[in-house]
Amino acid sequence: MDKLRVIAFDADDTLWVNEPFFREAEDVFCGLLEDYLPHHTVNRELYATEIANLPLYGYGIKAFALSMVETIIRVTDGRAPLSVVERAINIAKEMLDKPVELLEGVEETLEYLGARYRLVLATKGDLLDQERKLERSGLARHFHHIEVMSDKGEENYRKLIAHLDCRPEEFLMIGNSVKSDILPVLKLGGFAVHVPFHTTWVHEVVKEPVEHDRLLRCDTLGELKGLLPG
Amino acid sequence: MDKLRVIAFDADDTLWVNEPFFREAEDVFCGLLEDYLPHHTVNRELYATEIANLPLYGYGIKAFALSMVETIIRVTDGRAPLSVVERAINIAKEMLDKPVELLEGVEETLEYLGARYRLVLATKGDLLDQERKLERSGLARHFHHIEVMSDKGEENYRKLIAHLDCRPEEFLMIGNSVKSDILPVLKLGGFAVHVPFHTTWVHEVVKEPVEHDRLLRCDTLGELKGLLPG
Repeated sequence: MDKLRVIAFDADDTLWVNEPFFREAEDVFCGLLEDYLPHHTVNRELYATEIANLPLYGYGIKAFALSMVETIIRVTDGRAPLSVVERAINIAKEMLDKPVELLEGVEETLEYLGARYRLVLATKGDLLDQERKLERSGLARHFHHIEVMSDKGEENYRKLIAHLDCRPEEFLMIGNSVKSDILPVLKLGGFAVHVPFHTTWVHEVVKEPVEHDRLLRCDTLGELKGLLPG
Repeated sequence: MDKLRVIAFDADDTLWVNEPFFREAEDVFCGLLEDYLPHHTVNRELYATEIANLPLYGYGIKAFALSMVETIIRVTDGRAPLSVVERAINIAKEMLDKPVELLEGVEETLEYLGARYRLVLATKGDLLDQERKLERSGLARHFHHIEVMSDKGEENYRKLIAHLDCRPEEFLMIGNSVKSDILPVLKLGGFAVHVPFHTTWVHEVVKEPVEHDRLLRCDTLGELKGLLPG
């Protein structure tokens, strides 16, 4: 890791809370439809809609909103009143307007590492929503470059690393998702730090534990200082 | 214009057809609600919803879809059947899946200018949708950098120009929207070429004609060759 020059951070559930807001939203949504179907059935149907729509809509709250509306129509066989749709849209609007809640150790870690490495934000999701969260977080000044990606596969990281004018062995990615933040970067020859978060979307879950000589793990971002060459 | 190094192209209605698909979609949408309100009233209400949602949703088809749904709820006072919502969502899904229709002279102009300048794509809207259109267009290979912007104001261009490591007097923006492609770039000291398109969203219309010594105009992209230093 001696050649390290660029450190990229995932944002949602790495720098700030995100997934719990989706879980809360899903709960409220399932409640809206409890006259029609049991909670867990609605949840399963919503997930099926989201996965089916992923190639067309991508990630983010607007995609989630449209999938909620589609789920209402399908599971109620078109019988739900429009007021249910209205409430689903309001769930999404409230999500888009949530204050940003930073995770433990974020601010001082970025301060410390920013003096030693070039820091980059590499997040997927909705462009405007991610920009808004970054602005609200007050963290923008730490980052040399912001990359909102439509997906986080190997090819997306290959382009990002090329764009940053660095080689994989000079690049470290830090994030909570093994699937999106860790595996593709390791495959390209880069380094990764996994900082698990207590809540992970089913779609992001990787079942097998990952062991790799270019992978580190820590419980909070605050531990990073002790792990990287100072 | 002797110092010109980087040429940025807008995408929608500059490289390929876009706005007419929104006009068609609006027509179909207004037809869905003709039992409730006259065509032009629905159109006006949809536009009002879109503008109200712009700060929260940003640009793009998913935002348009959510605004259609919200408009249905409001203008029918919650009385429309869910089938109308379903059809509105299908309008948006069809838009997301449209083939890309290149405008006249695009291919050969990019070929010609790409050999002489660094070309950049600078577009606003939905990240995934713009990436998909670029891929389908077959034009990606011409561009050194792709920037999908959440908005196209002065500040967005200032960041883009800094990111491209060039000065405003080395930068030229080409696009169909005076408001989004021309005015902010001229203000920053850059050059611009306006290539008008026959259909413009009301929100993008600038009423006063713009005259500026760093602004050129042409009817199709094909005319660019003759306008720029070869």
